[in-house]
Amino acid sequence: MNIKTLLIANRGEIAVRIIRAARELGIRSVQVYSDADADSLAVKMADEAVNIGPPQAAKSYLNAAALLEAAAKTGADAVHPGYGFFSENADFADAVAAAGLVFIGPSGDTIRLMGDKVAARTTAAAAGVPTVPGSDGRIDDLDEARRLVEEIGFPVMIKAAAGGGGRGIRIVDDLAAFDQMAPQARAEAQAAFGDGGIYVEKVIRDARHIEVQVLGDGANVIHCYERECSLQRRRQKVWEEAPAAALPQAAREALCAAAVQLASAVDYRGAGTVEFLYDDASGGFYFIEMNTRIQVEHPVTEFVTAIDLVREMIRVAAGEPLSLRQEAVRLRGHAIEVRINAEDPSKGFMPFPGTVGTLAVPGGPGVRFDSMLYSGYAIPPFYDSLLGKLIVHDDTREAAIERLRRALRELDLGALKTTKPLFVALAEDEDVRRGAFHTRWLEHWLEENADRLAGTGE
Amino acid sequence: MNIKTLLIANRGEIAVRIIRAARELGIRSVQVYSDADADSLAVKMADEAVNIGPPQAAKSYLNAAALLEAAAKTGADAVHPGYGFFSENADFADAVAAAGLVFIGPSGDTIRLMGDKVAARTTAAAAGVPTVPGSDGRIDDLDEARRLVEEIGFPVMIKAAAGGGGRGIRIVDDLAAFDQMAPQARAEAQAAFGDGGIYVEKVIRDARHIEVQVLGDGANVIHCYERECSLQRRRQKVWEEAPAAALPQAAREALCAAAVQLASAVDYRGAGTVEFLYDDASGGFYFIEMNTRIQVEHPVTEFVTAIDLVREMIRVAAGEPLSLRQEAVRLRGHAIEVRINAEDPSKGFMPFPGTVGTLAVPGGPGVRFDSMLYSGYAIPPFYDSLLGKLIVHDDTREAAIERLRRALRELDLGALKTTKPLFVALAEDEDVRRGAFHTRWLEHWLEENADRLAGTGE
Repeated sequence: MNIKTLLIANRGEIAVRIIRAARELGIRSVQVYSDADADSLAVKMADEAVNIGPPQAAKSYLNAAALLEAAAKTGADAVHPGYGFFSENADFADAVAAAGLVFIGPSGDTIRLMGDKVAARTTAAAAGVPTVPGSDGRIDDLDEARRLVEEIGFPVMIKAAAGGGGRGIRIVDDLAAFDQMAPQARAEAQAAFGDGGIYVEKVIRDARHIEVQVLGDGANVIHCYERECSLQRRRQKVWEEAPAAALPQAAREALCAAAVQLASAVDYRGAGTVEFLYDDASGGFYFIEMNTRIQVEHPVTEFVTAIDLVREMIRVAAGEPLSLRQEAVRLRGHAIEVRINAEDPSKGFMPFPGTVGTLAVPGGPGVRFDSMLYSGYAIPPFYDSLLGKLIVHDDTREAAIERLRRALRELDLGALKTTKPLFVALAEDEDVRRGAFHTRWLEHWLEENADRLAGTGE
Repeated sequence: MNIKTLLIANRGEIAVRIIRAARELGIRSVQVYSDADADSLAVKMADEAVNIGPPQAAKSYLNAAALLEAAAKTGADAVHPGYGFFSENADFADAVAAAGLVFIGPSGDTIRLMGDKVAARTTAAAAGVPTVPGSDGRIDDLDEARRLVEEIGFPVMIKAAAGGGGRGIRIVDDLAAFDQMAPQARAEAQAAFGDGGIYVEKVIRDARHIEVQVLGDGANVIHCYERECSLQRRRQKVWEEAPAAALPQAAREALCAAAVQLASAVDYRGAGTVEFLYDDASGGFYFIEMNTRIQVEHPVTEFVTAIDLVREMIRVAAGEPLSLRQEAVRLRGHAIEVRINAEDPSKGFMPFPGTVGTLAVPGGPGVRFDSMLYSGYAIPPFYDSLLGKLIVHDDTREAAIERLRRALRELDLGALKTTKPLFVALAEDEDVRRGAFHTRWLEHWLEENADRLAGTGE
């Protein structure tokens, strides 16, 4: 291993996860922290910690100069960006490389290519990967966009070509709505990203979100099978599983092959995720985007494949070849992850920062709890609400759900309000148990079960 | 599942383990407790708890009448004995069955057969399983014993035919020592067990302790590969792994086949362990004994086979067939367990009961911590010193050792004195890392490293 000291340019549970992987590889860990994170678990665990500025992310975790200075000061020879923050920022990846450090991820060019929705779609199509019917490139002319949406049919999604995640997306059901929304979308994109280019695509309703984990070393790419993340609230995943809840074997093979085709086309190096929509009715699948980083939900894949994804991404960034071949990647059992957020489901998922009092973590076979929590920790109000992830693994999906229920019962977070009651309820739901859901299912369920969750203040 | 309510006739971490398995099977758990265990984690976790008497085991956990009364009172239809206490007591198994309840384990007759060292040895030999050269049955005549030890050669072990575990064992290196010790052994056996029968066998020096996990449903028996438990202190295992640290594949196959032969010969039902000594030099292996219960170290097997042994033993006791065939049992990676005992290695492993203050449990991939601990728990002084078990799993033995070191570093037990420093030191030892040890290795190491451990009060 030619990496000796790793700077972790992130916080929270993923920083803890990266420290663990580094330590097992014999790599010294340097944890950066904002003033708000001085008492974080990652700071306590790391071999060294460096303050990089005030709580606001722009002044600390999104301050490239401060991060590079921290790396120089501590003798770090590599930087792990985690997820969020700078993890998919091509300029940051370039700056890390320009400073003579190893960026734990693909090259800036690959990040740039996949970060541009239009370019990513074009690359996917060229690699033979099915894409959602839509504009084959950015559209700057609204009349041209109008002609296209008439052709592909409604509903249609309007997105900023330069945007990211779920931000600024509009869905329109007819031409009148399109004529009203499209100019707004264009103006907002211009204001937010300095780029008024838009992008339209057909909305695949009631589809499943299925994503394929890939690993590449720049020469070879393998897949580590798929995850299903159809249970989402406001486009945020809340419950993820591997393998998918209900996917024919032929579809699994086709999805995984498509992901490898795309990643191979860009000589991918690192851990990446190719996201698809899968339509149960037709069996069709459509490329959405590729995330060029580790995902929040990576542990479900680690459970079913026994591959340590974070370790592997560090190794390939260090120039080592992939440690295993495709034939050696075998699925075993079923894993489920639920996101324990500091949000109160009985009050519309209102953020609920607080101080951790009682803390009992579930144990026993097939249970993993990746978190940033310790007893006495005061959760800072500045960042996202993810406190930890409860992940379970068992022989079958049915058994994994029973194990999840058992583990949720053991998880005691004292007076904190968290999303735990949501998962207790979901694990008992018949649709969830049958795997009969799609990406809009949870929103409907939440509307119908508002009363039920209202009584769950824990 | 025809078991609805399970009485757990045990305490500590194994009671917690059994509650977890029961819960995942939809079985209600009833935890018995002595006055000293009213605040135990198992009592807190179980669906119901019943006080069965004073702290002394003879008046509570070894009080059959109290246990059966608790079962009757709570409507339990099955009893899980755990390990230790009544787990290998044939009369208790019979009494449970006579009360119309399911005993989670083999029949009283099987327990009785395997609990009698001489009968077990005879059964093994008849099943074609190699045994250590020694008396083929109990010996009541000391002259006959003397002739036999002259024949098989020294060193020789003298054991009580009725004894259990490591109690009352004497090792003699020559005839003079035999003449001195044998009458003592006979007199002690008479006093302790009301049975003066003894048993002699050749001591296989510098051998490895290798044991094979078996599962049977009364009709079929499968093995779940082997564990190595060569690292022992005073005949107590402290560090266990699966698969064995260094065992040729042919030897693995022969050991596993022998274990299945023995278990099949008695139509075994339940989880059991067939223990062997393995001689690196000759490649020979010798049956020691069969434990007709779940073992402390079962989680290493669960990690490498992905089989939930406690769940499986409940299922077969309920009359279900084994849930998998031999071909489906596949090894994946390497697992290591270390026993976190309330003992101070810097003071000769003096027991150290105390109250749990700070408690930080390791997490992340491939780590499991099965314990009876929670913050604020006052460890009662009446029972064995096992507080919990740290178990790790990774691709290779080398990686598992690195993971163990990482997890030990995360495990924070505050002011408690535990065996953790012993494992920190062992994980760095070259012999341990090479797997170059046998059952007496640790005793020597402890003598040589007394100074090193003396400074580890944590």
